[in-house]
Amino acid sequence: MLAEAIKTYQKRVDAILEQHLNQLDDAAPNLKAAMLHGALLGGKRIRPFLVYAVGNMFSVNINALDKAAAAIECIHAYSLIHDDLPAMDNDALRRGQPTVHVAFDEATAILAGDALQTLAFEIMTSISDDLSPTQQLAMVRVLAKAAGYQGMCGGQAIDLSATNHSIELQRLTELHNKKTGALISCAVEMALIAANAPAEQYQLMMQYAQALGLAFQVQDDILDITASTEELGKPQGSDEQSNKSTFPKLLGLDGAKACAEQLIQDALSALTKLPYNSQLIADFARYIIERRL
Amino acid sequence: MLAEAIKTYQKRVDAILEQHLNQLDDAAPNLKAAMLHGALLGGKRIRPFLVYAVGNMFSVNINALDKAAAAIECIHAYSLIHDDLPAMDNDALRRGQPTVHVAFDEATAILAGDALQTLAFEIMTSISDDLSPTQQLAMVRVLAKAAGYQGMCGGQAIDLSATNHSIELQRLTELHNKKTGALISCAVEMALIAANAPAEQYQLMMQYAQALGLAFQVQDDILDITASTEELGKPQGSDEQSNKSTFPKLLGLDGAKACAEQLIQDALSALTKLPYNSQLIADFARYIIERRL
Repeated sequence: MLAEAIKTYQKRVDAILEQHLNQLDDAAPNLKAAMLHGALLGGKRIRPFLVYAVGNMFSVNINALDKAAAAIECIHAYSLIHDDLPAMDNDALRRGQPTVHVAFDEATAILAGDALQTLAFEIMTSISDDLSPTQQLAMVRVLAKAAGYQGMCGGQAIDLSATNHSIELQRLTELHNKKTGALISCAVEMALIAANAPAEQYQLMMQYAQALGLAFQVQDDILDITASTEELGKPQGSDEQSNKSTFPKLLGLDGAKACAEQLIQDALSALTKLPYNSQLIADFARYIIERRL
Repeated sequence: MLAEAIKTYQKRVDAILEQHLNQLDDAAPNLKAAMLHGALLGGKRIRPFLVYAVGNMFSVNINALDKAAAAIECIHAYSLIHDDLPAMDNDALRRGQPTVHVAFDEATAILAGDALQTLAFEIMTSISDDLSPTQQLAMVRVLAKAAGYQGMCGGQAIDLSATNHSIELQRLTELHNKKTGALISCAVEMALIAANAPAEQYQLMMQYAQALGLAFQVQDDILDITASTEELGKPQGSDEQSNKSTFPKLLGLDGAKACAEQLIQDALSALTKLPYNSQLIADFARYIIERRL
């Protein structure tokens, strides 16, 4: 059930992304190819999944969710392209394939990231029959907030400044709440806006989203130690090598596992208070800390 | 009159930008400082001027124009930060001051550009008492289109691919229509959306904007040859040195001057068909090709 839903939504958002990218003219073919490479490198499509699954739980028409799913994945894809750059994490591999600046060049990778960020906002503001202007505007608003200084970009800046010296658990949590958590919460929030969800349910779902987002990062840190290079699609132990503070480093491996488990319990507890069938996103929460890649 | 209006609008948009940037928390102080450096490096604020001046011509309340003016300048500022990067134009000076990657570092400059792009969309979508959600959404839509692959980013990609070999006039025009023109047209268009301008006037104003945008770039190319390093705030002759195709190179210096003059005549001719006092933006068009910096 979960595996099937992940696959279905993954295919759906990939098709939409491909369509948006392929319909760009060929005025800058190299840039277009780099954007396609960065956006369609595969990946679990966790953020689009959350948009669709949460929207579906609130009985939102799936067509009303497509823009949000595609837009949030564009933001995620752009952030990976820029994070991989030599001046940032300097990663040559991503999902087992050459990163954009390796497959193309640095200038093209910078531009491809820039243009994918913009494309997110283009997609999110394109004419819609399924959302009101007020809803669309609110969705762009939360997307921009999650992606910018107060969210993902700020998190990456804290991450860079924290490399090569240890930081405390509170700062590490802040870092990941911004760097990874903000966009995961945003995926849930965009679905809630599409659903016009009432305030109390909105709040419970945001509790779920925030716990899930942090658990996702804790599990990523755990996998960097416990998974193989083949499973990861990038060198195993790269966090250790780049002297990054991680949850296992601060809490020990067992402590990190317990932390992830506790976060998922928090997420599930919020779901039980909702008058909906939340089986799919409950299963998803468990999957987040049981996954091997 | 023109000089005074330029100064007034420049001060207004600078104050708004400063306010938006200063109210960011201090979670990533280095990134915040880099964003401030990039956004408040001075500059003529040509795009905000157009938002305000065109809006004023159509009797739009100035408060309804502030978001568009600040947002479009954030997009412009981000593009300068990224264009200056070593992998792109590798410029160490901008407006007589160190560029962001020189004053900070490359990673911070990439992130500051990224976060300023996002900030544009945050500003443009923040709650407004002066614009309807439909207007705001339409403004974000034209901003995203002008900034992305079909506009500024695509233009920069064409520009990079055209360095070190000559291109024809048609391709050079396409390049600059995208790289510079799109955002200048967008400034005018956002004001027209705020004004709910009727279709015919909309079209005439867009003719003005497109001619103005190209004239601006032709004059930039002319200044790169004729102005001093001091006037430019960056090394004189840098286009020549980096083997870029320019209008003076393809048309000769006199030909380029005649081309700029013709474009301004086209811009002014569109204005005469409008039932408004267009003196200020007519003067501005002349200024664009008479300026020395």
